[in-house]
Amino acid sequence: MVDPNRQWRLAERPEGTPDRDVFEFVETEVPDPEPGPGEVLVRTRYLSVDPYMRGRMDGTSGYADAWEVGDPLQGGVVGEVVESNGTGFEAGDIVTGNLRWADYSTAAGTDLRPVDPDLAPVSAALGVLGMPGRTAYFGTREVAQPGAGDTFVVTGAAGAVGSVAGQVAALSGARVVGFAGSDEKVRFVEDELGFDACVNYEATDDYGAALDEAAPDGVDAYFDNVGGPITDAVFTRLNLDARVAVCGQISMYNATETPAGPRKLRHLIGTRATVEGFLVSDFAPRFEAATEQLAEWVRSGDVQYRETVTEGLENAPEAFLGLFEGENIGKQLVEVGEETGQQ
Amino acid sequence: MVDPNRQWRLAERPEGTPDRDVFEFVETEVPDPEPGPGEVLVRTRYLSVDPYMRGRMDGTSGYADAWEVGDPLQGGVVGEVVESNGTGFEAGDIVTGNLRWADYSTAAGTDLRPVDPDLAPVSAALGVLGMPGRTAYFGTREVAQPGAGDTFVVTGAAGAVGSVAGQVAALSGARVVGFAGSDEKVRFVEDELGFDACVNYEATDDYGAALDEAAPDGVDAYFDNVGGPITDAVFTRLNLDARVAVCGQISMYNATETPAGPRKLRHLIGTRATVEGFLVSDFAPRFEAATEQLAEWVRSGDVQYRETVTEGLENAPEAFLGLFEGENIGKQLVEVGEETGQQ
Repeated sequence: MVDPNRQWRLAERPEGTPDRDVFEFVETEVPDPEPGPGEVLVRTRYLSVDPYMRGRMDGTSGYADAWEVGDPLQGGVVGEVVESNGTGFEAGDIVTGNLRWADYSTAAGTDLRPVDPDLAPVSAALGVLGMPGRTAYFGTREVAQPGAGDTFVVTGAAGAVGSVAGQVAALSGARVVGFAGSDEKVRFVEDELGFDACVNYEATDDYGAALDEAAPDGVDAYFDNVGGPITDAVFTRLNLDARVAVCGQISMYNATETPAGPRKLRHLIGTRATVEGFLVSDFAPRFEAATEQLAEWVRSGDVQYRETVTEGLENAPEAFLGLFEGENIGKQLVEVGEETGQQ
Repeated sequence: MVDPNRQWRLAERPEGTPDRDVFEFVETEVPDPEPGPGEVLVRTRYLSVDPYMRGRMDGTSGYADAWEVGDPLQGGVVGEVVESNGTGFEAGDIVTGNLRWADYSTAAGTDLRPVDPDLAPVSAALGVLGMPGRTAYFGTREVAQPGAGDTFVVTGAAGAVGSVAGQVAALSGARVVGFAGSDEKVRFVEDELGFDACVNYEATDDYGAALDEAAPDGVDAYFDNVGGPITDAVFTRLNLDARVAVCGQISMYNATETPAGPRKLRHLIGTRATVEGFLVSDFAPRFEAATEQLAEWVRSGDVQYRETVTEGLENAPEAFLGLFEGENIGKQLVEVGEETGQQ
């Protein structure tokens, strides 16, 4: 097999908001490298682009390793096994793992997990049944912990994580309020996901007033994907024993200097509120159970999801950059290769 | 008994930093009012002034009720029972409770607790064996939770709460680093309290560099009484699973607008750090046990304490205002009346 293998590398570290120059598209041959013992050659079907990758570009995330200039970009991939070299996988199996932004990747079989195409379309393994879905699940149930009758607020409500977080909170009996960045997103969040209310933050500067209307009883649990002025408004409206789960701060990822905002720690004292950062990886021993629960909710219709699919590996940078412009509804994916029908 | 009863009232709400005009000194007669059934007349020995009272002056603390203009000021008092009207107390008993800034107060017997003069000088019931000591005890052990080998950082390290918090943390085996506002305080904290290091924050603007030197292994537990730029520097140096106890934010209490600072929530994600506000009142069922433990440590010398005593009820406003200038070392008290020897 001597197919071309297109792949993306980091061309330079971005300063502030990245542009296309950060990415370099190169072509090698397949396999690259040859799968050794216990390794698998995977043909990419879908590639995930996620906000946290911005931190890998300059090493500021504090948790995901920095990419060096020249490194192949990597992320969540769903693909098809082309060749298996003494692993439990067989050609045609659908797998997921952390692989290259490339047509093909070589990976250790132990770094891959099987994807069950009967659970949901295989792309869901990168969204509602993958890292974003599990992030929403654990961040909501284990960190923000909304209870019945609580008001739960989530930013990035139309995004891959926020859209699931709100629905998980609703299943706990919470009143769910989202923030999203367009009327279309608000309609999606309210009408399709069934949130009790959603604020279009692009249509107002007064997030406090918007919250007073959407969450008149204050905020008991807050799932923050965005940070910045919306979070400021929430902090001033936290109820007694409120819990804040800090999942992401996408509004800050492209900043060249730490943005300033009002100091809000004082609001934690009277409320005895807790603010806790988390990473989904801390819950790894329970990933399988979470995915099963999410799959059950997807089957029952309790959890709805949407994907925004960009066609073509060559457009992966645009798909990634669009995350910071709020262009996606639900999970942003890149479709790299079609189904071969080998299944 | 027709003695004069001097007392302080709120003359006006302060704007920003309060001055003497906020306080009105009035004179009534004793008793005022006459103790009814189940009530006690108490002669004030010591009066506590505490930073949280600033919030009561304009109702911004979020937890302590606002004083209305004309209201008598109130706070922790240690006094001597002059007259008991069908309570378990007897004349001469030393008691503590939340009473007026006055020569004499009338209170329900059920609102008073006995003070054991054999435990420590009775003024300690307003400091190390009172609310500040318990705040330090629970905030350290239950919220910040420093373990053996952890680095524990506390602001306001020479103050009533911080001085005890650091010693409680040291008893858990933590390396203890303080921030205080003068060389004299630093000597007190390092030499008398035995902290491993103390930074004079008035002698540097680069709190980050000071922390890198005093806490080279990062910060595992942070007890914050002050807020502002020191807290910013700590947030950037939090270790994995660090815990932040937000006890006070004295640097902000006199602000007329919420001060701005760098947005730091992002640092909580990779570290999975937790920031939690608390009030000592949440631990009320365990107050007695905490006081006993603190008294034992005071007796054994494991916990040292100091008091700054301002003489005379007429000087209570200056004692209070001095808190925001950092004039006190250890617990700031006002001595109102001397021991009568009735004991």
